[in-house]
Amino acid sequence: MPKISHKGAAMPASPIRKLVPYSDAAKKKGVNVYHLNIGQPDLETPALFWDKLKNLDIKVLEYCPSNGIASYREKFAGYYNNIGIKVDASNFMITEGASEALSFVMMSCIDEGDEIIIPEPMYANYIGFASAGNIIVKPISTSIENGFALPPIADFEKAITPKTKAILICNPNNPTGYFYSKEELLTLRKICLQHDLYLFVDEVYREFLYSGTPFFSALNLEGMDEHVVVFDSISKRFSACGARIGAIVTRNKQVLEASLKFGQMRLSPPSLGQIAGEDLFDLGKDYYDGVIAEYQKRRDTVIGLLNKIPGVKCPNPGGAFYAVAELPVNDTDKFCQWMLESFSYQGATVMMAPASGFYSTTGAGKNQVRIAYVLKSEDLTKAIQCLEEGLKTYAKKQLEPANAE
Amino acid sequence: MPKISHKGAAMPASPIRKLVPYSDAAKKKGVNVYHLNIGQPDLETPALFWDKLKNLDIKVLEYCPSNGIASYREKFAGYYNNIGIKVDASNFMITEGASEALSFVMMSCIDEGDEIIIPEPMYANYIGFASAGNIIVKPISTSIENGFALPPIADFEKAITPKTKAILICNPNNPTGYFYSKEELLTLRKICLQHDLYLFVDEVYREFLYSGTPFFSALNLEGMDEHVVVFDSISKRFSACGARIGAIVTRNKQVLEASLKFGQMRLSPPSLGQIAGEDLFDLGKDYYDGVIAEYQKRRDTVIGLLNKIPGVKCPNPGGAFYAVAELPVNDTDKFCQWMLESFSYQGATVMMAPASGFYSTTGAGKNQVRIAYVLKSEDLTKAIQCLEEGLKTYAKKQLEPANAE
Repeated sequence: MPKISHKGAAMPASPIRKLVPYSDAAKKKGVNVYHLNIGQPDLETPALFWDKLKNLDIKVLEYCPSNGIASYREKFAGYYNNIGIKVDASNFMITEGASEALSFVMMSCIDEGDEIIIPEPMYANYIGFASAGNIIVKPISTSIENGFALPPIADFEKAITPKTKAILICNPNNPTGYFYSKEELLTLRKICLQHDLYLFVDEVYREFLYSGTPFFSALNLEGMDEHVVVFDSISKRFSACGARIGAIVTRNKQVLEASLKFGQMRLSPPSLGQIAGEDLFDLGKDYYDGVIAEYQKRRDTVIGLLNKIPGVKCPNPGGAFYAVAELPVNDTDKFCQWMLESFSYQGATVMMAPASGFYSTTGAGKNQVRIAYVLKSEDLTKAIQCLEEGLKTYAKKQLEPANAE
Repeated sequence: MPKISHKGAAMPASPIRKLVPYSDAAKKKGVNVYHLNIGQPDLETPALFWDKLKNLDIKVLEYCPSNGIASYREKFAGYYNNIGIKVDASNFMITEGASEALSFVMMSCIDEGDEIIIPEPMYANYIGFASAGNIIVKPISTSIENGFALPPIADFEKAITPKTKAILICNPNNPTGYFYSKEELLTLRKICLQHDLYLFVDEVYREFLYSGTPFFSALNLEGMDEHVVVFDSISKRFSACGARIGAIVTRNKQVLEASLKFGQMRLSPPSLGQIAGEDLFDLGKDYYDGVIAEYQKRRDTVIGLLNKIPGVKCPNPGGAFYAVAELPVNDTDKFCQWMLESFSYQGATVMMAPASGFYSTTGAGKNQVRIAYVLKSEDLTKAIQCLEEGLKTYAKKQLEPANAE
């Protein structure tokens, strides 16, 4: 029997999805599972999208250009112009979600064995994309104590080697919800210019901000046109995760050209999501205000409740719809599995993503979880209450001699 | 300015799409371009698909499971059962086109520096997927003289090294249209069992057969459950290329598990194409008979006309909707570009894919093109007539001293 590759064996399973068999089993037993594990918004995809689908007048569902439908790229660029970023359609390559954008850009810019610096905890799939390309992730620790702010410049200097090609951040951050300030971006600019590094910024959550401070895009950093590559997606902005439409946005033509060759290899991104999604960029302030108000309410609910649970600590996130919380347990991989396998409260349990998978450093984040606040406030309230009860029961169980590990 | 990676620089541009800027320029000049370069069928996507989209009752376009929607996998398996292949939904992983299926399986089974044997000419993107994974393609030559049949077993034996992990064929073949016989598959079975190799078979064109001989799927090879991985797609079968829905089909659970980790990394395949496409598997004999009759007519038109042109040689393909033709020119890369840049006949020109990109061996196939017969017979007739005129003009041009190369 032929063996699978070392790369296949080494690929990490997604911490967001690896517990799915346990949640499926819980559901089969009739337990209601609150999904705080995945950033799947429950907000409705705007009616514009569905209306467009219902009124399609197409006979053949064709491939689109490898870099995306031209009119879609133009609309996308228009949205950027409206938020004060000067780009045009030629700066965009449409991809199958931001996932593919990250994958293509990493392969286009970083060779096997070369390094990328990413503050941790980091979006787990960054580790996967790097692993698929045999790229070395050099994590820089951030701390729950200061809300996961950008580490001091000295930490970056220490991590940079001749093999370092890029720094990657997610702003606002998945999984921590941390919202990087303009000053922090200027710090990164300085480091990248000094060491001639790419600055990759995942800005898919840029609308989801709760502090009143305006967003500062890496694309507006001066003198960084060749350095900055931004990743974007309509998944969260328009609750359209299943469309699988993302984008690479950069003024660096070489990066776009190399990425396009990877894009030609897979022929084209999905056509339907672009065709139906084009008009979503026309949505104005009303749409965004409504969405942000809803997420802010949820954030306030969930963070407030979490910090009332004895032993739980969770910084107040400035953006996105995630938070990383510290729990009074030794190993959240075991705890999260236990919550699904062995616990329910009032007929329900909670699924969270163990934070260990968001750390590249082995053993880090073992007592943390990522929580996505993508449910209605009432459900979030019940979910956090369920978590609190779970923690109580788990603590008792840990005291029983038979369960000592 | 940071540099792109060696991998990015080394990625080949798609021979199918690299001439797009020239065809765009021709169209801007008002020239009608017959697209024989790409397997984009002009047949209508079945009405079932569009009807489903028009009647969707969904509020949120969610991610689907990383291995695809369960009901879709069940329907897909049902279609396999109907054509005599015993598999169930658990043998499927839904992917973003067959492209992603190939990419995930190559990475799951073959490490950097290890080898895969592929008869050439081969589907150009196989070279791209291998290049992205730093996998070495070991081509085995097939010959236009015998219609690109499977090479003798001795050629495989010569190519196998301790680093060889898999053999990959496309049946019926893209780009040659060659339809592999059951006997040829049994030969491959013998080699794979003897050397413990994977047998990867791209069967996306399995319905498009014109010889009357029934299709023999690699999944029906005895004792090969752990060796065989099949790639599939709805793109060609249902003229739904833009849906980007493909599949990995195998009984090897380890390959599915490793591929799923790559699948989790990109979260999910597109939901819309699965939701709208589910019922297409209910289409019966009438649908397939109609499609096959149409392609057979086109094949007969295009192959008949090609072989009447002086100096052109084109074997009669047994399946798919491609043919590789030898032209009386030295370099089809230059000729195909010239056809778009400098030639028109009755207001039109022809875009073909230079065959060099379908060969892994440098310099091979320089006088060949791939032709996709995906247009109506009337248009194909005009296109081949245009090609004939182009060849005449090009031959004259070559005789002019100023154009000597």
